[in-house]
Amino acid sequence: VVIRVRKAGVCATDLEVIRGYYGYQGVMGHEFVGVAETGRYQGQRVAGEINLSCGECAFCLKGMPTHCPTRTVLGIVDHDGAFADYLTLPEANLHLLPETLGDDQAVFVEPVAAAFQTLECIHISPHDRVVLLGDGRLGLLTAQVVSLTGCDLTVVGKHERKLSLAEDWGIDAQFVDDIQANSADIVIDCTGNPGGFADALEWVRPRGSILLKSTYHGLPEADLTRVVVDEITVIGSRCGPFPAAIKALAQGTIKVGSMIDAHYNLDDGVAALEHAATPGTLKIILDVV
Amino acid sequence: VVIRVRKAGVCATDLEVIRGYYGYQGVMGHEFVGVAETGRYQGQRVAGEINLSCGECAFCLKGMPTHCPTRTVLGIVDHDGAFADYLTLPEANLHLLPETLGDDQAVFVEPVAAAFQTLECIHISPHDRVVLLGDGRLGLLTAQVVSLTGCDLTVVGKHERKLSLAEDWGIDAQFVDDIQANSADIVIDCTGNPGGFADALEWVRPRGSILLKSTYHGLPEADLTRVVVDEITVIGSRCGPFPAAIKALAQGTIKVGSMIDAHYNLDDGVAALEHAATPGTLKIILDVV
Repeated sequence: VVIRVRKAGVCATDLEVIRGYYGYQGVMGHEFVGVAETGRYQGQRVAGEINLSCGECAFCLKGMPTHCPTRTVLGIVDHDGAFADYLTLPEANLHLLPETLGDDQAVFVEPVAAAFQTLECIHISPHDRVVLLGDGRLGLLTAQVVSLTGCDLTVVGKHERKLSLAEDWGIDAQFVDDIQANSADIVIDCTGNPGGFADALEWVRPRGSILLKSTYHGLPEADLTRVVVDEITVIGSRCGPFPAAIKALAQGTIKVGSMIDAHYNLDDGVAALEHAATPGTLKIILDVV
Repeated sequence: VVIRVRKAGVCATDLEVIRGYYGYQGVMGHEFVGVAETGRYQGQRVAGEINLSCGECAFCLKGMPTHCPTRTVLGIVDHDGAFADYLTLPEANLHLLPETLGDDQAVFVEPVAAAFQTLECIHISPHDRVVLLGDGRLGLLTAQVVSLTGCDLTVVGKHERKLSLAEDWGIDAQFVDDIQANSADIVIDCTGNPGGFADALEWVRPRGSILLKSTYHGLPEADLTRVVVDEITVIGSRCGPFPAAIKALAQGTIKVGSMIDAHYNLDDGVAALEHAATPGTLKIILDVV
């Protein structure tokens, strides 16, 4: 399906791609809202899942298309992305957007889906003490999703402005130094840097779980002995369910308006990426149409 | 309870303790069979769980005494161990041994319990393809336990003699180079060296699980990005259930006779440890009485 892009979001992964992640060459961008110009959704607004899978391999047939070994990925692996007037995706990847969901909100469907993957990967109960590490884009979205479970959640970060955003949403937020060792049933690392795993290991209780939401540059040193001795479970988590994200954004359960720092025209894309790379920045949106 | 030690086993952890693991100073040894000289089991043969817990902290009260933060550990942390004529343990740690279980077999109760912890930590179904990495002491015991599930199990190692032991038990055994990437639902790492984790990451399929059974020296580099992208679950596993181990050894379901390489008298303990540290050695037993 040919899709006319209306808006696209800049993600930390885009900044990694610039640094050489996956050796990608092509049009970047994988968070978007657009209008289908062909196919059964013609003329309607859509969001799109970013993995293009073969549909025939063992993983696809087992319902794990995001792990198809020959997949390409919109704007990341061998498939031109959303920082452009048009992109293409298979019809099966598209999700219609309700009218109540504005374009600025709809740009967040993909990262909010990744945040909802947390609930797919691990059962978080209202009794659980959860520490979420990282007050960046993914951290703040994941915090909102995790908070829906009713658990005892604290977001931990380094930026006063971002932590106060979490507090505006009714989520407890603290600076890194204030967390006690072995105090969390579950630690969720959204930092994207190797120190995050070390902090998570310090804070999680024996037999607790660490959920890794972000990728790291290089091979971090990891205290695997601690994982064994304290019988920790470490779970990796990536792309997630679009329908849950669309519903939560349309209902206003997940709030993203205050996370938008700036809009740029597509022609000013370089400036937009530079802005997104500035420490402390949350979401930068490219207005394409 | 005062326990007269009859036999004690030498474990890889003992060799780590000699190298400075936990900074332990005291009598080593945590695998033993002995006779209680005091308490309700007086005059009877017992095996003993090795963690001495407070019984009052949150972990003890939640049924996780092996994670009591103030615990000592027989022959490893602040409590004299089994390479001696006598040791002491709380009565709650002791398990009576059936008469059908010989002393040489009973020495294996503690490591077989650790092997059974695998089944406590992860559900292995008969449909699962499992690769167990490591043909050492713990690897061969864990392989026998995992094989009980009926899964499709392959033990991977470097020593022809040890691999042929596994084959004697009806367990498929292969050299390291013969395993295909992404081919296993579950990989169990019993190597005790950091390369084991890297191999496990290569062999496990997306959304598969890696069980870590052994501790590592230092901080290995770990490809946590792969954990996230492939949504792998990594589970640490340590001490395990004694009753399951005693039952399986008494029933002969778990076979240990062919794993005993030599017996030494306690007076020759130094030679026994040197023998145990020789590459390719399986179990060395100290005859105390």
